[in-house]
Amino acid sequence: MTTHSAPADALVDADDRHLREERIASDEVYKGHFLSMRRDRVRLPDGREAAREYVVHPGAVMIVPILPDGRLVVERQYRYPVSRTMIEFPAGKLDPGEGGLVCAQRELFEETGYRATRWAKAGVMHPVIGYANEFIEVWFADGLVAGERQLDEGEFLDVFEATQAQLEGWMRDGRLTDAKTIVGMMWLAQWRSGACTLTWTEVPASPV
Amino acid sequence: MTTHSAPADALVDADDRHLREERIASDEVYKGHFLSMRRDRVRLPDGREAAREYVVHPGAVMIVPILPDGRLVVERQYRYPVSRTMIEFPAGKLDPGEGGLVCAQRELFEETGYRATRWAKAGVMHPVIGYANEFIEVWFADGLVAGERQLDEGEFLDVFEATQAQLEGWMRDGRLTDAKTIVGMMWLAQWRSGACTLTWTEVPASPV
Repeated sequence: MTTHSAPADALVDADDRHLREERIASDEVYKGHFLSMRRDRVRLPDGREAAREYVVHPGAVMIVPILPDGRLVVERQYRYPVSRTMIEFPAGKLDPGEGGLVCAQRELFEETGYRATRWAKAGVMHPVIGYANEFIEVWFADGLVAGERQLDEGEFLDVFEATQAQLEGWMRDGRLTDAKTIVGMMWLAQWRSGACTLTWTEVPASPV
Repeated sequence: MTTHSAPADALVDADDRHLREERIASDEVYKGHFLSMRRDRVRLPDGREAAREYVVHPGAVMIVPILPDGRLVVERQYRYPVSRTMIEFPAGKLDPGEGGLVCAQRELFEETGYRATRWAKAGVMHPVIGYANEFIEVWFADGLVAGERQLDEGEFLDVFEATQAQLEGWMRDGRLTDAKTIVGMMWLAQWRSGACTLTWTEVPASPV
């Protein structure tokens, strides 16, 4: 048998030395306009060597923006790599040295025109653990104040509002397939069901 | 104002010609052992041109394996790009020409030793729409029969069981951050709450 009899809560934190891989060497193998890729040599748990290729990413934030009536602000954006228009929560990459909250405020404002007066960090996700070091911080934004968005040059996206039930319905019928957005919906469902609390920070809704 | 007054259900399916990007040219800019990357020239909705870099991926499946007592089978695996041991549902890439169900049966058996007698495809997710064309099919596996796993050479992972409540708790406390797995948990929560039904296929639990 392949499974363990110890309680799951013990296993999740159990020693992981029999699983870990150690870096031997690391090379940048591709340097593009937006992406770079590294190929590392690693030592496996059994002492042998292997190669690991991965995209280097600065990290990102995603915002779950909550309107006074409880609806969420979402975007509709064409995503070239998957050749389709996707429904997403607002998100964006961290600038060098930028903190998560500042990035979240900036991206929400630039893409949707909204500023928020209350912010809470729910958690972090890793979208692509097989071949990128990307992490995405999940931020809730409450007390929204509408304004005029400031899209980056060459950025095209629609902004609209949807209920939690609508978003979940679009996931079930295949119209919403963006993993980070579904993770945000999971956090929203957990929070609204009372399974977790969030620690809110009050932020003046002044220009970013 | 940046938002629309039309109902959200109309907006999600609205015409997207003002958002779409058209391919002008496409080049393979990196060819590695496991990954390749392309850089395409695209025409933006306003007629200007831009570059789009993305990882080319064959697609993948993820399995939500349900034990007779309702617990889920999960794995603990070191993921080098994020430098940590992650809790995940079993998953793996499609082989050339392989169908999703066959891939799901193969990966579940190889990584955990389990075979399932009932399978249902819940949906598809896109884990990294900014820079990869990867999709992941979400398959539920029920009627599990334990056997001996057949790990690929150089593959090291623990297999254990956890309840839905444990997985959700680990997400909330930051011990479970893998986006695809959280999407699987969202599908599980939707299904168990009665929000959606699954169409099951009976499959003999014979050797794959």
